[in-house]
Amino acid sequence: MDAGEEIVFKPIGILHSPYRTLEETPRWYTLSEEEGTIEIFPEYEEALDGIERYEELDVLYFFHLAKRDILKVRPLHSKELRGVFAARSPHRPNPIALSTVKLVKREGRFLRIKGIDAIDGTPVLDVKPHKE
Amino acid sequence: MDAGEEIVFKPIGILHSPYRTLEETPRWYTLSEEEGTIEIFPEYEEALDGIERYEELDVLYFFHLAKRDILKVRPLHSKELRGVFAARSPHRPNPIALSTVKLVKREGRFLRIKGIDAIDGTPVLDVKPHKE
Repeated sequence: MDAGEEIVFKPIGILHSPYRTLEETPRWYTLSEEEGTIEIFPEYEEALDGIERYEELDVLYFFHLAKRDILKVRPLHSKELRGVFAARSPHRPNPIALSTVKLVKREGRFLRIKGIDAIDGTPVLDVKPHKE
Repeated sequence: MDAGEEIVFKPIGILHSPYRTLEETPRWYTLSEEEGTIEIFPEYEEALDGIERYEELDVLYFFHLAKRDILKVRPLHSKELRGVFAARSPHRPNPIALSTVKLVKREGRFLRIKGIDAIDGTPVLDVKPHKE
């Protein structure tokens, strides 16, 4: 596989978040105590079996509003530009965001979670237990 | 964005790993003290600027050999089948693996890392500092 090859994913769900604009969305998930809901699409509901046993989940979001052609950013509290692979900026070639969240409750294909740092409508790529 | 929509990524690099077969690759990165190298493709080298300051990185791999149509797996040490979102199995609809690794050394666009749990030739989707 080389640099030009394409990798295709489909969202497995969508985030329902209290944050409706990028301005109000926190820059870092550890800053957030906000709750929201991950809606897993019906065809993947079976893949949630057993998730209730975990208190913490790693969620991979597709940051669909991010800029993908930026290689340098200025991190919070920094004066210098830094490469995007040396920052947790949403702007990066493959804007996949990783957030560790608390699982509050599962109801069918809906996961109530705490620690939201993404905007309403963000596509979800994957959900994993934070620790096995 | 709905369940059918496609999200397209391109690899930003490739893993050079001592593991040449899936059989010898560990099931879990915390089991591994093995070293390897992430080669970032030349067009993204600038995005590494400043990464030397971090001891730990979160690496997102594309597990290109994984099965994407499996929704249940039997985890290690478990008797029951479990949903793939309640497991860290490589087999999942979007086989994006998350490993926290130690950064041993950066040399240009090559990152020497410790804690490899992926096979040689695995495409890399993203690299981030583990903690900001």
